[in-house]
Amino acid sequence: FGLPLVSTNGHMGRVQHPFGGFCIKQRWNVRPSEMSKKTLNPIRAIVDGMKLTPNPEKPMIALSIGDPTVFGNMPTDDTVLQAVKEAIDSHKYNGYAPSVGYQKSREAVANFYSCPEAPLEDKDVILTSGCSQAIELAISVLCNPGDNILVPRPGFSLYKTLAVSMGIQVKHYNLLPEKSWEIDLQHLESLIDDKTACLIVNNPSNPCGSVFSREHQHKILSVASRNCIPILADEIYGDMVFPGCDFQPLAPLSSDVPILSCGGLAKRWLVPGWRMGWILIHDRNDIFGTGIREGLVKLSQRILGPCTVVQGALESILNDTPPEFYQGTISFLKSNSEICFSELSTVPGLNPVMPSGAMYIMVRIEMEHFPDFQNDVEFTERLVTEQSVFCLPATAFEYPNFFRIVVTVPEEMMIEACIRIREFCARHYRPRSQDSHELDQ
Amino acid sequence: FGLPLVSTNGHMGRVQHPFGGFCIKQRWNVRPSEMSKKTLNPIRAIVDGMKLTPNPEKPMIALSIGDPTVFGNMPTDDTVLQAVKEAIDSHKYNGYAPSVGYQKSREAVANFYSCPEAPLEDKDVILTSGCSQAIELAISVLCNPGDNILVPRPGFSLYKTLAVSMGIQVKHYNLLPEKSWEIDLQHLESLIDDKTACLIVNNPSNPCGSVFSREHQHKILSVASRNCIPILADEIYGDMVFPGCDFQPLAPLSSDVPILSCGGLAKRWLVPGWRMGWILIHDRNDIFGTGIREGLVKLSQRILGPCTVVQGALESILNDTPPEFYQGTISFLKSNSEICFSELSTVPGLNPVMPSGAMYIMVRIEMEHFPDFQNDVEFTERLVTEQSVFCLPATAFEYPNFFRIVVTVPEEMMIEACIRIREFCARHYRPRSQDSHELDQ
Repeated sequence: FGLPLVSTNGHMGRVQHPFGGFCIKQRWNVRPSEMSKKTLNPIRAIVDGMKLTPNPEKPMIALSIGDPTVFGNMPTDDTVLQAVKEAIDSHKYNGYAPSVGYQKSREAVANFYSCPEAPLEDKDVILTSGCSQAIELAISVLCNPGDNILVPRPGFSLYKTLAVSMGIQVKHYNLLPEKSWEIDLQHLESLIDDKTACLIVNNPSNPCGSVFSREHQHKILSVASRNCIPILADEIYGDMVFPGCDFQPLAPLSSDVPILSCGGLAKRWLVPGWRMGWILIHDRNDIFGTGIREGLVKLSQRILGPCTVVQGALESILNDTPPEFYQGTISFLKSNSEICFSELSTVPGLNPVMPSGAMYIMVRIEMEHFPDFQNDVEFTERLVTEQSVFCLPATAFEYPNFFRIVVTVPEEMMIEACIRIREFCARHYRPRSQDSHELDQ
Repeated sequence: FGLPLVSTNGHMGRVQHPFGGFCIKQRWNVRPSEMSKKTLNPIRAIVDGMKLTPNPEKPMIALSIGDPTVFGNMPTDDTVLQAVKEAIDSHKYNGYAPSVGYQKSREAVANFYSCPEAPLEDKDVILTSGCSQAIELAISVLCNPGDNILVPRPGFSLYKTLAVSMGIQVKHYNLLPEKSWEIDLQHLESLIDDKTACLIVNNPSNPCGSVFSREHQHKILSVASRNCIPILADEIYGDMVFPGCDFQPLAPLSSDVPILSCGGLAKRWLVPGWRMGWILIHDRNDIFGTGIREGLVKLSQRILGPCTVVQGALESILNDTPPEFYQGTISFLKSNSEICFSELSTVPGLNPVMPSGAMYIMVRIEMEHFPDFQNDVEFTERLVTEQSVFCLPATAFEYPNFFRIVVTVPEEMMIEACIRIREFCARHYRPRSQDSHELDQ
């Protein structure tokens, strides 16, 4: 209609403009960038595609959200809140901090995590806007488009979301549920090629709740060392392990593999919304050298680090939070995990894997016994429809036929949820022999 | 030396690994990514290259830092601090917020900036980790590698830092000091081509302190409209204009140009370290449509938005801060600007441009009268050596032969700094006729 402002070959017609030159006349054509289109959140994609209509006769129990604060039963410690209020009252933390964080705050983190086998100084710490940005910066500095990274399956979806948006290929290595989610080292090593820029190790694990033994971590480090692959250790659930189990950060176990360890206040201090994360730079034999360090500093200058009042409170948060607070969190998580595990262990058709830490349990669905459902997404969808219990289908973690339970809910909700899951399974379970029999007819 | 583990053509030798397969044996070779290397901060590059050795007999006066909090003379309002402390005490803001921010906080921002000509709802607001991340997301969603963006010269360096790191070309349009830093519209329009994805307009301006008239903004919008180029309006200094001058946000002046307006608490509320910024989405005729909106949401999921306790305080900060606070800031900035302008106006060889807002003055150096110095970098370097006064050379803003003065310092320091600058110029000034005479000999 009217004048053909855009010619058919896609070039724009030139139209004289008021200043006497020519301007490029075109129609409005504003499209989202390729990068934004490639930034995919699989959890959102799956959950948004589910029909989540709870049973109106039963109140909803959400076991899906990895946020320990939603039910109000796991408040942070008063020391933590008081520290931020004091930072505000000091009037000292309103201006810009260095983009990598205040020197004093970085020193506090360094001192908190330093040990003789892997000493840390303030220069080895970069403060970030949550552990998410720590992971983003670590991937950004280590990888170029066309490289690949090794990520766990099942695993936290952000690694893939970030990598794919940056044009970095993701290769999944398997975790073995029958071995408490240890890494299939042979599979891991088989994935490495000359474009492998980084190995991501998540310990304790989301979504598995598993905690690696020292021996297993030594084997992981051997693979990295043999193949000269640096490690991004996502240790945001560090120290959140049950009594009797020993959390061991990865860095002190190696003297030759350079490691960027990502962490933050989110989980252990129960303030995920505060967006206070960090990267601990564990260089070895100058392999990272000034290049990686300066790269991280440059990347931190894009958005200038985390909120300064939380930075100002960091030293006190790390040093003054009483041990009883951490112990209270852990014993609650362990108790809830045990309730959930022992309840679901006796449900025909389900196989929960007992965790050793973090705040999750993975449960295998013996799909062959649930012919009503095609997969874990349908299973968890119907669990909402019938029982108003929502668990994340593990397809969201690239691991079909499992679902993930968050164990931070109040105990009575945990128990009630398990009762409902049992009822749901009882209704839909078909013994295998019967199935075969029916198929034979 | 030893075995050639890496062959000369760059491919890796294959070595049998313990599981019986083959691994890629190589030497450690961890290099910072191309993106991190392309993330360049010109201010740091220039300042780090300067020999900044103050005169030991004079205390240093830094007029270089765009942070109003450094001298303690410009505290934020108690309402602002109180609001955050209440958010902490409420225990409601420790968990994850939606990645675009709490609905209630976005609604507060929408209500604060909504007007009949450019109405805003909560869905039109994205909360970000500072205005820096707002600008990063806006550029990220509008531009692909290979596109170009139009940025002001002189202008804030972050636009270029971000764009270049993303493979986006930067084209500088000129501002005209003789017209109070209005845009050279003819030059602007001449830069547009079919790869131009976005026009960045910064008003009030850093480093100029200029504020565009309505008429001039209408002309800018005409250029954008004619050429169908969306606008990124950096309005972080919005409303920070001197009495008698009228700040007009860009969006309400147009009904057809889609605009992403970036702002935040940093400057007007004097808390730049808190990293609370926002994007206001002003769509027109569905040109942005769901594509740009969803693109921004997706990009926000990478690092999950700003600190929740500041988000929780946002409604009160915006609605309860007394008008006297804003007025106090502005009258102080105006008074200091007038002192600085009137002092430096009478210094032979300098031409300050009186600002109308923000917190900066640009001063032209008549380089032909200062033969001791090659350029603005040498001029400002020696000003430190001799007088212990540090102003940023405007080469940092792509604009040689000027320097920028920050007017947030206490009045007595402003006066003292002007006296020293006068002394410095008197010492190095050479009248032009004398120069010519000398050259003739």
